[in-house]
Amino acid sequence: MSVDINCDMGESFGIYRVGDDEAIMPHITQANIACGFHSSDPNHMRAAIELARRHGVKVGAHFSLPDLAGFGRREMTIDREEMANIIIYQIGALKGFLDVAGIPLSHLKPHGALYGMAANREHIAHGVADAAEHFRVPLLGLAGTLHEEIYTARGLEFQAEFFSDLDYDDEGKLIITREHAAVDPEEAARRTVRAVTDGLVRSVGGKDLPVRVQTVCVHSDTPNAAAVARSVHTALEPYLAA
Amino acid sequence: MSVDINCDMGESFGIYRVGDDEAIMPHITQANIACGFHSSDPNHMRAAIELARRHGVKVGAHFSLPDLAGFGRREMTIDREEMANIIIYQIGALKGFLDVAGIPLSHLKPHGALYGMAANREHIAHGVADAAEHFRVPLLGLAGTLHEEIYTARGLEFQAEFFSDLDYDDEGKLIITREHAAVDPEEAARRTVRAVTDGLVRSVGGKDLPVRVQTVCVHSDTPNAAAVARSVHTALEPYLAA
Amino acid sequence: MSVDINCDMGESFGIYRVGDDEAIMPHITQANIACGFHSSDPNHMRAAIELARRHGVKVGAHFSLPDLAGFGRREMTIDREEMANIIIYQIGALKGFLDVAGIPLSHLKPHGALYGMAANREHIAHGVADAAEHFRVPLLGLAGTLHEEIYTARGLEFQAEFFSDLDYDDEGKLIITREHAAVDPEEAARRTVRAVTDGLVRSVGGKDLPVRVQTVCVHSDTPNAAAVARSVHTALEPYLAA
Amino acid sequence: MSVDINCDMGESFGIYRVGDDEAIMPHITQANIACGFHSSDPNHMRAAIELARRHGVKVGAHFSLPDLAGFGRREMTIDREEMANIIIYQIGALKGFLDVAGIPLSHLKPHGALYGMAANREHIAHGVADAAEHFRVPLLGLAGTLHEEIYTARGLEFQAEFFSDLDYDDEGKLIITREHAAVDPEEAARRTVRAVTDGLVRSVGGKDLPVRVQTVCVHSDTPNAAAVARSVHTALEPYLAA
Repeated sequence: MSVDINCDMGESFGIYRVGDDEAIMPHITQANIACGFHSSDPNHMRAAIELARRHGVKVGAHFSLPDLAGFGRREMTIDREEMANIIIYQIGALKGFLDVAGIPLSHLKPHGALYGMAANREHIAHGVADAAEHFRVPLLGLAGTLHEEIYTARGLEFQAEFFSDLDYDDEGKLIITREHAAVDPEEAARRTVRAVTDGLVRSVGGKDLPVRVQTVCVHSDTPNAAAVARSVHTALEPYLAA
Repeated sequence: MSVDINCDMGESFGIYRVGDDEAIMPHITQANIACGFHSSDPNHMRAAIELARRHGVKVGAHFSLPDLAGFGRREMTIDREEMANIIIYQIGALKGFLDVAGIPLSHLKPHGALYGMAANREHIAHGVADAAEHFRVPLLGLAGTLHEEIYTARGLEFQAEFFSDLDYDDEGKLIITREHAAVDPEEAARRTVRAVTDGLVRSVGGKDLPVRVQTVCVHSDTPNAAAVARSVHTALEPYLAA
Repeated sequence: MSVDINCDMGESFGIYRVGDDEAIMPHITQANIACGFHSSDPNHMRAAIELARRHGVKVGAHFSLPDLAGFGRREMTIDREEMANIIIYQIGALKGFLDVAGIPLSHLKPHGALYGMAANREHIAHGVADAAEHFRVPLLGLAGTLHEEIYTARGLEFQAEFFSDLDYDDEGKLIITREHAAVDPEEAARRTVRAVTDGLVRSVGGKDLPVRVQTVCVHSDTPNAAAVARSVHTALEPYLAA
Repeated sequence: MSVDINCDMGESFGIYRVGDDEAIMPHITQANIACGFHSSDPNHMRAAIELARRHGVKVGAHFSLPDLAGFGRREMTIDREEMANIIIYQIGALKGFLDVAGIPLSHLKPHGALYGMAANREHIAHGVADAAEHFRVPLLGLAGTLHEEIYTARGLEFQAEFFSDLDYDDEGKLIITREHAAVDPEEAARRTVRAVTDGLVRSVGGKDLPVRVQTVCVHSDTPNAAAVARSVHTALEPYLAA
């Protein structure tokens, strides 16, 4: 039993700053770095990778639909072939900086609207896999979805993600909100440890539901993100992946 | 004595088409593929690389200033560090597609305004080198410039470029025009062979000037580009690089 | 009984050229000019307006989703308020050039994916109307749709569009294709005149269906667009709006 | 003797926020609203205009070079005609929202690198004037520059700007820094009142230099921008334009 802690990093753009990468980086094991399509730019990508390198944090590509104005949160019609090409471009761009920093690509994670589209649309799930299969690293996603099914059926490695700071409804579905409210760091740590050790999460309706956890997501845009990350990190210490 | 023939490829964008890649590709040995900053997009980059692969043409990154609206032809103020980062991003993106196609990165070439800026501004020449030194492939550029001087002083490989379809003034300076007029394919071939074999080019004022030629550029946007490429290619057959 | 002939104009972008505006402009009465979100740029917008002015052609805003890479043909999730704001921005930008040219805004037309989204999604139809109601000019759209219903219920002027170069299925639905095949100019003119004078169109299955025609669309991207425009224009001469 | 207080507003972009428009708006008389080329977007433009309207603040177009990634702070090569067209587009877009809000365009101000380019390059100063002359409102700029000279020679209204939060060197040149340090609000108010009433400013070298002040700029990105605006506003109360 070993888990990772992942967080979205490098989401600033030009003069615009979001996320406290410096404060969060010490408390995670996987940095999902934006690739310029929903946020970030070459300067911020390089800085985020350098920060991850200094903290010994693994670096993955956090690719997206091409939508800087909407932060990648708006669904778009896109065909399978273009989906794959857009993702290859972004992974490649990130790998350019990884080559320069001398660290390997660790993982992949779809961002925002694409995360959900990959979970429930076959041609998108396949488009993601068409790109990902060339890079031979695990992809972080939602367990129990079409995305996982297609991904694993094609022999690719899927890493099931648990959200330390989001609620689940009684059917086990994530309750995703555009703005992330502050969560109690201790409570987030407790439920994460329970999910990791017992494979259970309490839904908003009070049901205990089974969950599979290979990596724990801590959002960078909750108001107290660094405190949540620290608390979850401390509690998960015994279970962390090398 | 061995030379390459290079041409800019993959410059279409979305529904917009420029250049007859299909007609020109058979007549070159190096394809300079746009990386999405002055032209191209993930779909066109992948298609151009696939076309190059089928013709056994080497593929290089044709990187640019970030200026799609201006086709990379407008100079911009940019500092050395950002210059390097923008180039790493573009080379990386192209390499993503090369990894997928299973072919190596062959060379680098700055596009448009950046080509000239690298030739005469120290911090830009260094910014280009800061990025390029991580990829260990030759860079195509103008011989006798600050660019070449800085590049080779840093121990990096510079490939001197001759323009088959542009005129030189009496000081040996290229006469660069925004629109490329049609040139006589036979005449272009003759002067290119002379440059390759004798190291001489006749200026517009009628002077014979020394030139060094390691790769010959054929523009893709002269009205009869494919005919020029074919003629130059045929004439250079005995001298082509493997 | 009086009709307009409309065509999309000004769709070039930077060095990229599409559409033969010069050849088509003499044969239309309404130019739908792109506003920079799916195509065009300030230079091309101004040139297209100047061309329209010289030919006495009315000028409308052809607004779009923000998607230059996809030419506005990809649907996007967008809320009502942002929809309105995006459209106001584009109409305003076009009006800037109209103010300079000294001609009034004549009409509005949604482009590409937005044209269809407005026809069948309530919040998009309302978002378009929220923007359009401030400019008090007719909007060109598909008759018999939710778009028309919402638009006219709000007291706004809707101009029903007939497509001279597209087929209709047996239910009266337009058969929209991404690439427009060449059509016979004489045949296009005949069916357009029939639609205008008899209010009938023959479907692909051979049925005569009722149509309402206030403006006739001629596509600029059929291979023989100018010939179609000329033929339709000549045939409609007796019925043209002032 | 009557002055305005101007400040750049509406510079947020998508999820990215900069500037405390809510806190500053009560203390200014002219809001320079970004038009989407260096910052802002249709949603933020509309919100900023609505905020200005509620506070009775006049609204002007803060137009820029097309450079979102660089916040319009990087110089670009641009010809006179394109310069004018880019500005007309932006003014028009802003006017679209002003038409909707029912308030008039009050003034114009070039942003960032363009502010400086207009001050010292003839073709840029003319390009700005080529656009501005169609809108018949004053343009805010630096007195004593080529920009003012060309502008007024063409019969256009130029409003001389004083910077409450920047230092002047002994030659009377503004000392422009990329990041604006916090300034003492009381000191800023004192020197601004002196500039307005006595037409003098103390340079960093201790010289008293003549200045002409028609509008006072308060930057929105100094760390204590709202406090500076409030202090300057209170001190200038007797001298404010209607």
